[in-house]
Amino acid sequence: MTESSLAIYALGGMNEIGKNMYVIECEEDIFIIDCGAKFANNNLLGVDLIVPDITYLQQHQDRIRALIVTHGHEDHIGGIPYVLQRLNVPIYASHFTLGLIELKLKEHKLLRDTQLIEIDENSSLQFTTSTISFFQINHSIPDCLGIVFHTAQGKIVHTGDFKFDFTPVNDSASDIHKMAAIGEQGILALISESTNAERPGMTPSEQLVGDNLKDAFTKATNKIFITTFASNVNRIQQIVEATIETNRRLVLLGRSMVNVVSVAIERGYLRIPHRLLVDVREAQHLAPEQVVVLCTGSQGEPLAALARLASGRQRDLQVHPDDTVIFATSPIPGNEKNVSKVIDDLFYLGANVIYGSAGMHVSGHGYQEDLKLMLTLMKPKYLIPIHGEYRMLYKHRELAKSVGVEGNNVFILKNGEVVDFIHSAAQQTRTVQAGETYVDRVGTGEVENIVLRDRQQLAEDGMLVIVLTINQENGQPLASPDTISRGFVYAKNAEGLLLEINDLVLSSVQPFKDANTRGMQHAIKKAVGQYIFTATRKKPMILPIIIAV
Amino acid sequence: MTESSLAIYALGGMNEIGKNMYVIECEEDIFIIDCGAKFANNNLLGVDLIVPDITYLQQHQDRIRALIVTHGHEDHIGGIPYVLQRLNVPIYASHFTLGLIELKLKEHKLLRDTQLIEIDENSSLQFTTSTISFFQINHSIPDCLGIVFHTAQGKIVHTGDFKFDFTPVNDSASDIHKMAAIGEQGILALISESTNAERPGMTPSEQLVGDNLKDAFTKATNKIFITTFASNVNRIQQIVEATIETNRRLVLLGRSMVNVVSVAIERGYLRIPHRLLVDVREAQHLAPEQVVVLCTGSQGEPLAALARLASGRQRDLQVHPDDTVIFATSPIPGNEKNVSKVIDDLFYLGANVIYGSAGMHVSGHGYQEDLKLMLTLMKPKYLIPIHGEYRMLYKHRELAKSVGVEGNNVFILKNGEVVDFIHSAAQQTRTVQAGETYVDRVGTGEVENIVLRDRQQLAEDGMLVIVLTINQENGQPLASPDTISRGFVYAKNAEGLLLEINDLVLSSVQPFKDANTRGMQHAIKKAVGQYIFTATRKKPMILPIIIAV
Repeated sequence: MTESSLAIYALGGMNEIGKNMYVIECEEDIFIIDCGAKFANNNLLGVDLIVPDITYLQQHQDRIRALIVTHGHEDHIGGIPYVLQRLNVPIYASHFTLGLIELKLKEHKLLRDTQLIEIDENSSLQFTTSTISFFQINHSIPDCLGIVFHTAQGKIVHTGDFKFDFTPVNDSASDIHKMAAIGEQGILALISESTNAERPGMTPSEQLVGDNLKDAFTKATNKIFITTFASNVNRIQQIVEATIETNRRLVLLGRSMVNVVSVAIERGYLRIPHRLLVDVREAQHLAPEQVVVLCTGSQGEPLAALARLASGRQRDLQVHPDDTVIFATSPIPGNEKNVSKVIDDLFYLGANVIYGSAGMHVSGHGYQEDLKLMLTLMKPKYLIPIHGEYRMLYKHRELAKSVGVEGNNVFILKNGEVVDFIHSAAQQTRTVQAGETYVDRVGTGEVENIVLRDRQQLAEDGMLVIVLTINQENGQPLASPDTISRGFVYAKNAEGLLLEINDLVLSSVQPFKDANTRGMQHAIKKAVGQYIFTATRKKPMILPIIIAV
Repeated sequence: MTESSLAIYALGGMNEIGKNMYVIECEEDIFIIDCGAKFANNNLLGVDLIVPDITYLQQHQDRIRALIVTHGHEDHIGGIPYVLQRLNVPIYASHFTLGLIELKLKEHKLLRDTQLIEIDENSSLQFTTSTISFFQINHSIPDCLGIVFHTAQGKIVHTGDFKFDFTPVNDSASDIHKMAAIGEQGILALISESTNAERPGMTPSEQLVGDNLKDAFTKATNKIFITTFASNVNRIQQIVEATIETNRRLVLLGRSMVNVVSVAIERGYLRIPHRLLVDVREAQHLAPEQVVVLCTGSQGEPLAALARLASGRQRDLQVHPDDTVIFATSPIPGNEKNVSKVIDDLFYLGANVIYGSAGMHVSGHGYQEDLKLMLTLMKPKYLIPIHGEYRMLYKHRELAKSVGVEGNNVFILKNGEVVDFIHSAAQQTRTVQAGETYVDRVGTGEVENIVLRDRQQLAEDGMLVIVLTINQENGQPLASPDTISRGFVYAKNAEGLLLEINDLVLSSVQPFKDANTRGMQHAIKKAVGQYIFTATRKKPMILPIIIAV
């Protein structure tokens, strides 16, 4: 390491939406930005969460000074409980973000041993090698921060997730004057999010949703059910106001909705008048036109409140014909099928369902013009686009070029690829270990690749256990083998196949003249595997068990 | 059954997109319309296709007179090989549709034993109880037919899949004059597709795609890769024309593209000049600006040509920087993630990827105005909306009401629910057996529910096989048990857990004083299952194997 070294890389967030984790190394100090999780898709059987591989950070634990969290979304805080079990690091975050982190740590019984430090946009953190300051940024959750690292080689700015909303709800605008001041003489490098780099124009204001909500609430004749992300507190504030204006009462349904709303009220980010909130039982005594139910499940999650309501599994509350159901979100890519199932079930109950392009959702991520405004304000020498699939990072580079950033000065990185700065000049030549760690149900631990491969095989074609007892002296079978099939064929319908397999087992162990169980297992696996593949085109897992007595 | 009975029901296609199968029973005669398959999602492990449950038809096999196929899409013909193995029924279809069916039957070695009868829009089929005639309809595949059943109680019209394209490619317009004549005195019942009942306006014409294709081909400087559905022959015709106009040659890539294009050329639905087609090897000797590659994989299918190209797995052809790749389709709901992966890989190769709302795709299914035009032409007393999720059928009813159909005369059915007509009055009171049959890799047979449940458990949490040898006289264990884990925990990392399980096995069989293997299995399963769930929150499949010697 040379004097005044400076390096930037991602351990998560490049070529993906999810598990954001960025690292800035300034001489001996390591700063981590965000620690997200991403949800596993169906191809990862029995895996619930994916978090960044932090092997490299564990190897350099003594140099880590801080985990700084830009905001409280799952793709920025979801990995914290897992990482904290392996790295004890102080966490810096804003008032609301800390509230959500504490909720998560309580659940994992990690709150007591963690050092949490509250910061705001005026904080300034002094470390040996650099000073860190912040600026307020607007997004679909309150209290978001952008970060400025003041280093010997120049300023590094990390935007966090952002949009520019000039008419925000709750005065949470991006602080454009502070950002202009930071960028006035230009900065060395901008690390900027890319989620909506494909979408032309400027992100619409959250106020738009408020206007459409009020219209829909006014038109509704019976109960109103509305779903949005629990963390979108500003949207919830607008739902609260529409509820008040139409003389209704509000029921909260779903664990995360209740939890996050409590944190938001406690910490002063949400104003709900006393007596507006009622519980499900009280709501049963109200007239339908007096009820609004705000619930979880906007992504069609099968276990969340809305899916339970839609399929009639919610005991104490029902969706009736002519009730109104509003989706105040869009489906996240990959969730379309689940959402469409829930919408269908709601139609089936006779509800008036408002979904799709009804103006009940705006994105929290800046479109192309927002990204160009950020680039224009910051005037970076280098850009590292983050937080996006490859094509989004690619489009972000095109946008940067259009506002004057040198194309060669934009680094599109993979997770683990390091940009090193020497005398304020950047180059990318080395990598650190990066990858995915699979977490099997939150908190119970990692899932190894070999276990996943087994599950894949079991899931596709099932398995056969073949039990054979042999004489330990001469290796001769003592009885006909026993074949147990699970997930392969239903035994009652495949007697012929199973008899054939038994014959094959006996003939494949016949050549053995002693109790060579390993050799026999191998011979059985090969013979039976080939036969089954020829007969059925399937490759079940075959487990021969040889017992010598 | 009363004199002159008439009944309509679906065995597939209600509350779903896929596996279309509709049935009209006219006195003793049973007519089947279409026989589709749908692709299984990831939740059905190891299942490749879903086809209709045809138990009811098998029970009434002697009454079945015909399977009439409206057009050659998979969701209308994909179930034929499976159903033909159980029901020997003559198939009536148009020239092109028959070509695609023959392709499928050849693959399944069923061609020789199947009676195929070619029909066209002028055919008239005489049966004891009714006459069947046809009309030409426009869709995203050539040679589509609507069907008219002339029965004693009145006319029943089945639309097939359709749109109204007034400027179609290849003169394949919906025959609006014939439809007007059919509907002039009104019809008894209209069975009409509902796929785009949610979309306002009129479906754009296929010509629009042609114009945009020509623009993109003209601008492209290097190789052009383009993907669309192989069956969309009219779009392929437009690709051929753009290829000719820009002095390029055409390579076909992907098995289904080659097969379907051959059928289309042979049967006269596609005109490709001699020498325009070249194979991959010849293309290697052409300059990049002379090459167009038309390939499969528009839905991001991991094994199709485009995904192979995108990930560099296609040996003899590569995507290079500045090549153009055009997606001339939209992702079907559920395929978004796969498509986005392929787009990303192509960007990574430096290609200019044209996707999303670039005007390279129009739907083959009529929007709201198309559906209203059909209703207006046919003037039905009753409407049975088909081919859609519940909300689409529901919206179709709203559309029907808006053009004068009585709301109570619209029957939104589930698969298996029967509408009976008596003296030209309809009622829905009875059902026939309907459901899903799972097919495990095409052609090898059904997958039972119990096998699927096992796979689900194996996939989520894996399994444990516990082998214990006991004395056949007194039931005492003869050795320490052997525990084999697959897909549950990686044995090397879980020695403590496995030792604990062995102890539990021994203590749970201790009370037994004889070789009660069944009782022992039960006791082991219970004790080990409870322990594992408490320790890990998992429920692996537990298979105790007791060997008494």
